[in-house]
Amino acid sequence: MKATAKAHTNIALIKYWGKRNEDIILPTNSSLSLTLDGFYTTTTVAFHDDLSRDVFTLNDQIIEGESYNRVTKFLDLIRNQSEKKHLFAEVHSINTVPTAAGFASSASGFAALAAASTRAIGFNVNDEELSRLTRQGSGSACRSIYGGFVEWEMGSREDGLDSHAIQIASEKHWDVRVAAVVLSSTEKKVSSRAGMKRTVETSPFYTGWLDSIPYDMKEIKAAIREKDFEKTGSIAEANCLKMHATTLGANPPFTYWHDTTMRVMQTVQEMRENGIPAYFTIDAGPNVKVLYLPENEDKVKKVLEDIPGVSDVTLSKPGPGVTYL
Amino acid sequence: MKATAKAHTNIALIKYWGKRNEDIILPTNSSLSLTLDGFYTTTTVAFHDDLSRDVFTLNDQIIEGESYNRVTKFLDLIRNQSEKKHLFAEVHSINTVPTAAGFASSASGFAALAAASTRAIGFNVNDEELSRLTRQGSGSACRSIYGGFVEWEMGSREDGLDSHAIQIASEKHWDVRVAAVVLSSTEKKVSSRAGMKRTVETSPFYTGWLDSIPYDMKEIKAAIREKDFEKTGSIAEANCLKMHATTLGANPPFTYWHDTTMRVMQTVQEMRENGIPAYFTIDAGPNVKVLYLPENEDKVKKVLEDIPGVSDVTLSKPGPGVTYL
Repeated sequence: MKATAKAHTNIALIKYWGKRNEDIILPTNSSLSLTLDGFYTTTTVAFHDDLSRDVFTLNDQIIEGESYNRVTKFLDLIRNQSEKKHLFAEVHSINTVPTAAGFASSASGFAALAAASTRAIGFNVNDEELSRLTRQGSGSACRSIYGGFVEWEMGSREDGLDSHAIQIASEKHWDVRVAAVVLSSTEKKVSSRAGMKRTVETSPFYTGWLDSIPYDMKEIKAAIREKDFEKTGSIAEANCLKMHATTLGANPPFTYWHDTTMRVMQTVQEMRENGIPAYFTIDAGPNVKVLYLPENEDKVKKVLEDIPGVSDVTLSKPGPGVTYL
Repeated sequence: MKATAKAHTNIALIKYWGKRNEDIILPTNSSLSLTLDGFYTTTTVAFHDDLSRDVFTLNDQIIEGESYNRVTKFLDLIRNQSEKKHLFAEVHSINTVPTAAGFASSASGFAALAAASTRAIGFNVNDEELSRLTRQGSGSACRSIYGGFVEWEMGSREDGLDSHAIQIASEKHWDVRVAAVVLSSTEKKVSSRAGMKRTVETSPFYTGWLDSIPYDMKEIKAAIREKDFEKTGSIAEANCLKMHATTLGANPPFTYWHDTTMRVMQTVQEMRENGIPAYFTIDAGPNVKVLYLPENEDKVKKVLEDIPGVSDVTLSKPGPGVTYL
């Protein structure tokens, strides 16, 4: 009744941006990510018959409130499919995604929770089934079940059975690196969840966004297969710009960008003009992730660290999928 | 055979962004602007029978090249409708749109050229006819024929006869002020003309942009009539964000924004949070124009001047239409 799993975070190269079902988390478009070696969560789940409620600790701190509720809601999903509906769990998570790296912990967090809790309760699930379960905890987490380059196929079924991740290429296929650039000011006035929802409901650009995904997806998969860095990077960068463009059309309009976000984008474009291939991508927040190749690591790190308003640059290689400890 | 006219520049609150006919300049959407008192061009046109080509001076400098070609092409349009097809002209323009204010000189320039050249050659044109002629020199210039709040009705005819400006409210209707905020770095990698064209041809957001215009136009006209500053400003700001969003979806994507552009936008939003109503709008370049009310002039100017990376803030009131001197 106890298991421990480790899962890594991932960075989307084709963004997940919009839900068609908020309850079981079904997306309006397929997305594609790279799992990252540097940032992971290790979670132990133990079901006990002498607990009166779930207990959740993160980095040895007892967690209550919204984060606790999301964890217990996910455990309900697991419990309710078993014969042990009335057992509660102790969940201990250690998050080694440095807060300073600016990644949401939900991707690695829910992937590790799903893996540990299913194993602890005695389910024998394959990766596809695990990804589908994980999706219901946190959408982008379903991609962290796999290592390397991963697609989340949106599916078309209302019950979500065909909405899960698949691996496009393993972490050993291609050593593309990611620099996580964190800004001194990381204020975010609109949450990812609320921003996504407002955009889907009000932006006149949302249809254009959706229409552009199948082509981007087809092209980036070919580019990854061919290890074409320029093509992979430019599709990812353009896709990120499109995602952020949709928020500018929302009512009321909003943006996740700060002035320093803009400066990092300009700097990455200047690096390219100076012969260093590098491309940016930005999630629903002001921080920037920069894709580069191993041979340019020192130069890229130096250039990014020297940008005024940047507080931290953390590097990562492609990482593996879920493992059990 | 000689006449002098003065025309003011204008700032679009609903942007002109896309041509359906590049030859006679027909837009893909209607637009709306405020003519500005502070920035104008005075032009004298004199047709002579002893010239072998047109002569064009701007601020007492002889102009050749692309700018000269646009002027002679416009004069051809006028000459070819007269019995004096073979006369050439001396054109002397004085541009008091300070370069430092970051306005394109083409709006006031072509409005003054159209007014002076038609009068010099002896045409008796009304404002609507003059606006239609002006449009063929420079699209947004057709709005500068009128003072105050002006709509450029896109029209639907292929010959452009129904594509011209009309006045919505005179400069005396409502004293809304504009601060032209110029950045230290004003580099612009994509011209307005090229950016517009690339966006129309490649951005998946262009249809969404067009679809949103009729509502914006209806709402801002009502807001101007009611002198509702919050409504006028927020529609203008949202419309500008939508225009700039379309460029992020172009292939290849581009933006006119710099990091300082972003900082000015953030500062304007902060002013509002601090109780000073102010709204921004941005044309196809990095500079920002800020709308405010007269009672907040000192505060707004001070706040904008104090932004790092801002080199100049120039203020203006609503201005009149074309006048003859």
